[in-house]
Amino acid sequence: MRHCMSPLDFSVEEIDQLLDLATDIEHNPEKYSHSCEGKKIATLFYEPSTRTRLSFETAMLNLGGKVLGFSSASSSSASKGESVSDTIRVISCFADIAAIRHPKEGAPYVASLVSKIPVINAGDGGHQHPTQTLTDLMTIRSIKGRLNNMTIGICGDLKFGRTVHSLIAALVRYTGIRFVLISPEELRIPDYVRDDVLRKNNVPFKEVIRLEDALPELDVLYMTRVQKERFFNEDDYIRMKDFYILDRAKLQLAKPDCAVLHPLPRVNEISVDVDNDPRACYFRQVQYGVYVRMALILTLLGVKVC
Amino acid sequence: MRHCMSPLDFSVEEIDQLLDLATDIEHNPEKYSHSCEGKKIATLFYEPSTRTRLSFETAMLNLGGKVLGFSSASSSSASKGESVSDTIRVISCFADIAAIRHPKEGAPYVASLVSKIPVINAGDGGHQHPTQTLTDLMTIRSIKGRLNNMTIGICGDLKFGRTVHSLIAALVRYTGIRFVLISPEELRIPDYVRDDVLRKNNVPFKEVIRLEDALPELDVLYMTRVQKERFFNEDDYIRMKDFYILDRAKLQLAKPDCAVLHPLPRVNEISVDVDNDPRACYFRQVQYGVYVRMALILTLLGVKVC
Amino acid sequence: MRHCMSPLDFSVEEIDQLLDLATDIEHNPEKYSHSCEGKKIATLFYEPSTRTRLSFETAMLNLGGKVLGFSSASSSSASKGESVSDTIRVISCFADIAAIRHPKEGAPYVASLVSKIPVINAGDGGHQHPTQTLTDLMTIRSIKGRLNNMTIGICGDLKFGRTVHSLIAALVRYTGIRFVLISPEELRIPDYVRDDVLRKNNVPFKEVIRLEDALPELDVLYMTRVQKERFFNEDDYIRMKDFYILDRAKLQLAKPDCAVLHPLPRVNEISVDVDNDPRACYFRQVQYGVYVRMALILTLLGVKVC
Repeated sequence: MRHCMSPLDFSVEEIDQLLDLATDIEHNPEKYSHSCEGKKIATLFYEPSTRTRLSFETAMLNLGGKVLGFSSASSSSASKGESVSDTIRVISCFADIAAIRHPKEGAPYVASLVSKIPVINAGDGGHQHPTQTLTDLMTIRSIKGRLNNMTIGICGDLKFGRTVHSLIAALVRYTGIRFVLISPEELRIPDYVRDDVLRKNNVPFKEVIRLEDALPELDVLYMTRVQKERFFNEDDYIRMKDFYILDRAKLQLAKPDCAVLHPLPRVNEISVDVDNDPRACYFRQVQYGVYVRMALILTLLGVKVC
Repeated sequence: MRHCMSPLDFSVEEIDQLLDLATDIEHNPEKYSHSCEGKKIATLFYEPSTRTRLSFETAMLNLGGKVLGFSSASSSSASKGESVSDTIRVISCFADIAAIRHPKEGAPYVASLVSKIPVINAGDGGHQHPTQTLTDLMTIRSIKGRLNNMTIGICGDLKFGRTVHSLIAALVRYTGIRFVLISPEELRIPDYVRDDVLRKNNVPFKEVIRLEDALPELDVLYMTRVQKERFFNEDDYIRMKDFYILDRAKLQLAKPDCAVLHPLPRVNEISVDVDNDPRACYFRQVQYGVYVRMALILTLLGVKVC
Repeated sequence: MRHCMSPLDFSVEEIDQLLDLATDIEHNPEKYSHSCEGKKIATLFYEPSTRTRLSFETAMLNLGGKVLGFSSASSSSASKGESVSDTIRVISCFADIAAIRHPKEGAPYVASLVSKIPVINAGDGGHQHPTQTLTDLMTIRSIKGRLNNMTIGICGDLKFGRTVHSLIAALVRYTGIRFVLISPEELRIPDYVRDDVLRKNNVPFKEVIRLEDALPELDVLYMTRVQKERFFNEDDYIRMKDFYILDRAKLQLAKPDCAVLHPLPRVNEISVDVDNDPRACYFRQVQYGVYVRMALILTLLGVKVC
């Protein structure tokens, strides 16, 4: 039995297979619409996340399966002091697969150790969120037609952004990838990513402060939010915040086929006047997230569809 | 693609068709039990409402479809600052139709502007709650056999009662309707309803203070709650509150075929000793609410059942 | 129409039939997987309980039925002052059967009086939790092969433990049952259980303070939690708490086929190093709970499967 804790749990070949399956699902949804009949996913969300929870539930419903679970810790047995390990042992009696979101790093892993059913990490604190990374890879591959030979800009809070670190770690395994890291000084990529992931793998990158400076050369722009609280002082925030907001004017600097991604929810870091630009891919990204979760559920359950 | 924001979105003819469909569903539920197979409704409830949410979910389940969503803002992405517009764009990737309840007037409308799927307003603050009005119309038509030529009493808080304003606006489109408006002075129908809806359409009405005075002439009595906080002073409340409580004694004044409706939940404005009187229709009203929501879902999804 | 309020609602013969059905479900799940198609259970949880709620939902889903409901009072109409009686009248229009969990003793009973659909008490305050007792009986019968002629130890908070009182009342109806009641002085079984249930039915029992003293003679050990707040003073708690923690060392004193049960959630009263001992049956108990709820739903709905 296999779990999904980190995007690096899968080899490049396995990710290829997963994305191939997701693409087949995209193009032939009917073929898969009864493939998980009689099966159930438990969505155990110890902290709320509409999009991720509903994406998993949609994935299972699209496969003909069923859903149970809880959407916040307060409506779970956690409020009575039950450990995550005990909860997953109990849930193993109810469901065939589980997706766990937990504020504590490592909680889904602890659950996986005693689980009788496959466990998917649906986000554990600042640690991992593998289905977001798989979604990002699926989106890039679907829109650009490849996962190699491109320049990828990542903009915003590169210090604390969990999805950013996972995405970089997943992309350095492909050839010809080059990064442009766009952030304020305070929120630069951490040393362990710069040294142990980028430099160690000889992946070219540069770090810039203004989004405008990076835009013209990007094949993909991955936007994330810069929270006011992250800045050292109010003056810096006021001076720099506009550097990290993508609007229609800035987007004119981008290539005509640059793909703009965002893990959502966005607050104001992408102006709504960008939404209808064909380069805005963040809502399509949500749709790809459903396909990739469908593929992941089928893979972990060992369901083959011919 | 069509949304449902207000009961007046539909012409009288369209409402007739909708109620005909709902009646056919009532009498032939089996015929519709697989009509939405493979389809999903998202119930996006930014404020709790058991009855309305579960009515929509029951409607979709009865049609063979599936359900996802959230039942309070705290378990949604709204707590992370996501706009309703972004949420519906995301939900458009998950579901085929959405029902939105929101404390802010106009929020479902804002969502409908960018939605890729039909949106039903399931109540937006003090503004509209169209499926309640459709339920009320269905109940009156089913029990009285018609929507014209009758005297309809509306009792309680006529100033702030959203369902009351909608019901009046929907009923003035039929012929031979006469209203008796029963409320304390402080909670009389607002001027814009009296002038722009009733008088403008030449609909006869009178305003009375005591329920007893109105009861004998009513074909339908629509009860709503009078909240203590709405009164200007405690003395008025104590003096008048019993005027607006329907009990078995008062009901003896009503016609033998008077239909008593209430949008629920009730607190004490209808005594439980009335519940078993054949004129008490408020629980049947709940049942009609399911049929009318089934009809609405089928209509907005463009599903035809032969 | 029949409801399930207390485990004693069923005669010994009826419980036999119910457990026979549950056992058949265990061994032939496929046979029952479409038996409730088109039917819905409403899970009305006025206080949270993951395990019980999800067990009911799993049971209905396993039978091919569907689920709706709420998982806390705050997302129900209770927050608007609706009575449980009105809520069940409304829910009767939505679902075919309901499971109600409520902090107030008797609330599910009050609901059952006006309900149009079968109501299952899913736990009402400190009063009854019949499906837990049925689960316990199913577990003992499945693992020991019988419900008579054995020595059953019950350990922990015997004063306030709802499940303990129900289990004793259910077991005294079988022959050859002997109890060993293990608790601190402050938390001994209440007089009415000792006198009106045990002595009145001539059921032999003894009361001991230390788990070690009881273990060697037990066929079944039913563990429950001892909460610190229940002790009269801190010193007593510190002196005695280890008496009521089952760990691997203590378990060596037990018979090789002693079955250890626990209603869950556990906090620390069973050490995790016991979990993999074949005598640890508390997670299997969860699984039996699903089968017994499936049997109960079928029975109350009057569904026969051939």
